[in-house]
Amino acid sequence: MAGTTLTTPTLADKLQAAKDASVTLATANADLKNRGLLAIAAAVRAGTARILPANELDLANGRGSGLSAGLQDRLRLDADRLEALAQAVEQIVGLVDPVGETVRGSILPNGVKITQVRVPFGVVGAIYEARPNVTIDIAALALKSGNAAVLRGGSAAENTNRVLVEILQEALVSAGLPGDAVQTIDEFGREGARELMQARGLVDVLIPRGSAELIQTVVRESKVPVIETGDGVVHVFLDESAPLDWAVDIVRNAKVQRPSVCNALETLLVHRAAAPRLLPAVLGALRESGVTLHADDDTRALFPDSVPATDDDWRAEYYSLDLAVALVDSLDEAIDHIRRYSTHHTESIVTNDLQNAERFLNEVDSAVVMANASTRFTDGGEFGFGAEVGISTQKLHARGPMGLPELTSTKWIVRGSGQVRA
Amino acid sequence: MAGTTLTTPTLADKLQAAKDASVTLATANADLKNRGLLAIAAAVRAGTARILPANELDLANGRGSGLSAGLQDRLRLDADRLEALAQAVEQIVGLVDPVGETVRGSILPNGVKITQVRVPFGVVGAIYEARPNVTIDIAALALKSGNAAVLRGGSAAENTNRVLVEILQEALVSAGLPGDAVQTIDEFGREGARELMQARGLVDVLIPRGSAELIQTVVRESKVPVIETGDGVVHVFLDESAPLDWAVDIVRNAKVQRPSVCNALETLLVHRAAAPRLLPAVLGALRESGVTLHADDDTRALFPDSVPATDDDWRAEYYSLDLAVALVDSLDEAIDHIRRYSTHHTESIVTNDLQNAERFLNEVDSAVVMANASTRFTDGGEFGFGAEVGISTQKLHARGPMGLPELTSTKWIVRGSGQVRA
Repeated sequence: MAGTTLTTPTLADKLQAAKDASVTLATANADLKNRGLLAIAAAVRAGTARILPANELDLANGRGSGLSAGLQDRLRLDADRLEALAQAVEQIVGLVDPVGETVRGSILPNGVKITQVRVPFGVVGAIYEARPNVTIDIAALALKSGNAAVLRGGSAAENTNRVLVEILQEALVSAGLPGDAVQTIDEFGREGARELMQARGLVDVLIPRGSAELIQTVVRESKVPVIETGDGVVHVFLDESAPLDWAVDIVRNAKVQRPSVCNALETLLVHRAAAPRLLPAVLGALRESGVTLHADDDTRALFPDSVPATDDDWRAEYYSLDLAVALVDSLDEAIDHIRRYSTHHTESIVTNDLQNAERFLNEVDSAVVMANASTRFTDGGEFGFGAEVGISTQKLHARGPMGLPELTSTKWIVRGSGQVRA
Repeated sequence: MAGTTLTTPTLADKLQAAKDASVTLATANADLKNRGLLAIAAAVRAGTARILPANELDLANGRGSGLSAGLQDRLRLDADRLEALAQAVEQIVGLVDPVGETVRGSILPNGVKITQVRVPFGVVGAIYEARPNVTIDIAALALKSGNAAVLRGGSAAENTNRVLVEILQEALVSAGLPGDAVQTIDEFGREGARELMQARGLVDVLIPRGSAELIQTVVRESKVPVIETGDGVVHVFLDESAPLDWAVDIVRNAKVQRPSVCNALETLLVHRAAAPRLLPAVLGALRESGVTLHADDDTRALFPDSVPATDDDWRAEYYSLDLAVALVDSLDEAIDHIRRYSTHHTESIVTNDLQNAERFLNEVDSAVVMANASTRFTDGGEFGFGAEVGISTQKLHARGPMGLPELTSTKWIVRGSGQVRA
């Protein structure tokens, strides 16, 4: 077949095609990118009859290979979920294009003008598992921020993702954009994922989303710069002065409203002096909601039918209606506990003491630190970002909920009139 | 010796001590950090008699082991160089403390106030070679930005760095700051460098400075997030409309003023239609300065005694009075050449054509893009940053000259009054 265009592309071919497409995307204006987004939304709706059979095939394979019920649920698409995805893409149309924003600038003493402006990364890689909605989300966010996207969605969703990427590429071409701006590399399997992680120079940033194991593998093996998105051992500390109603509301909301997500509460710390005043109402409300308490001895003295906590409980990301509870003697002890066990995602203090609130906000070293609010607010949508790439738990480049600006780099533009350096 | 404090610390002990010290530094205000910087400057001056013998020992070892003359020069300290280092530290006192700066913020519809503020990374690691001045520079920049520093300066400067770190630690303690905020791990050798690169969680960012080989090793092996600082295949393009005087001044300055540094010109591209008008004066001036031209055939037709260029010349970082020269037919061809061979450090166009200037600035994907200015301006000092950590050639977190803000991360501070998520 040499000499024809039907040769199957290698992974290197696909990365190079994405890189080439990124050059066009980098200078596409917001109007053009928004036309692409609207075409994607329309294509997802129009493509329902193509997408669902492919998804059904993946689901059947998953049932055959013993995929867990939870993963099957994340894998499953239906007409309602596709409509929600299309609407999410349309919402991205309304977000401000981050490309071209002036970050800072000045005129040097010699008259040279320097300006730091936002530019796309170029090629964004994503590695995730069994969540075909991420295929659409990342492709749309990458497009709006002027990036090409290379997607490794995992073998469990391979048929779904292949059809979704076909539909995405058709939509891009129909809007006058390069179809190669979205690529799947699922067909290259695990070896393809490894090759993607080595592609420094072709891929500018790699974002893993999924299990802690997946994320740690990417962090360990990737030579492409990684943004680590992570799970949370999230803490709430009820200070001595915590208002009772805030304590009850915030703890219940943080634990119960959606226990399976990374910003849900996992460990509750309570000031010993306030325990008799707060715990009956706070823990009573949790029990009404079906929460199992894993408590230290001091808490069990007050609530004897709690499960005794072990050291493992302070490190647990339950993602379920379980909660570790400990009494502490002071704010210092609470901060020490958090420093020891937190994954630095989100921590909140409930207090009416201004000094303690400020100390907690300053001294706790997490992506998001809160006073008197539910940890469930750590979310791109809640923060007003409109869409979220993930929640970064590293300190380099992005920290906390990532929106469109976090999918950009910067460059310096220097305008002179013949100046040279003395 | 169990039970005493005289046990030799392991590398893990040192990293943990740096991490603990970083907690104190993170909340130190600018006054305290500036007192530390002034104490460091005074200690460097007062310590000259301790530093120079250690440096002499390293130099003697270097001569014995065949260290190149260039590396010996970088390794050598004397009274003047120490005074210059002390003055550089004093200049950092005058820079704005980046910690606490509000990056963005808003009040959510439910009244929750969110603010993104700059915070120190925590622990900054640096791996470099035979340049003891970097020990002082990085320690001072890390202190001002509230970070602890773990330094691997290489075996060639081991004695010098050990004394410098002792002096730094004494100065920190004298100012009421934790001495453990600066650590050297030179005594652990190559194995120590490897362990530092694995210390994700204890070290927040790793900055390699030095040879391309050193930097690539760190990029390849580190699990700690890396900021790649890099060499430059730097281009100047003389467009058809380039004013002659600007062309002569900028090319000569970019190539000749300091050829051994990363922002020096390496490849000159010239629009074919302007070559007869520009080249005699531009290349004549370079020859007067002793520059050897490695030219393509078209240029050699005009300047027959140039060295014929090979493909290697387009990739060359000469760091010497050598220059690759090629004629191109158009702006597009110039941009294509740059896309193919550039290391994305700095590129400049000399032109009087507004459209071409804007296209070059928008389409060339380098850390710094210029119109009508010398590439030698890519420098933290020239940009007004006061001091420079290095020049980042990656796109994640920092790009181009890095100042104090690039040594910080951010965190989100959320202030509520009992709000929960609906």
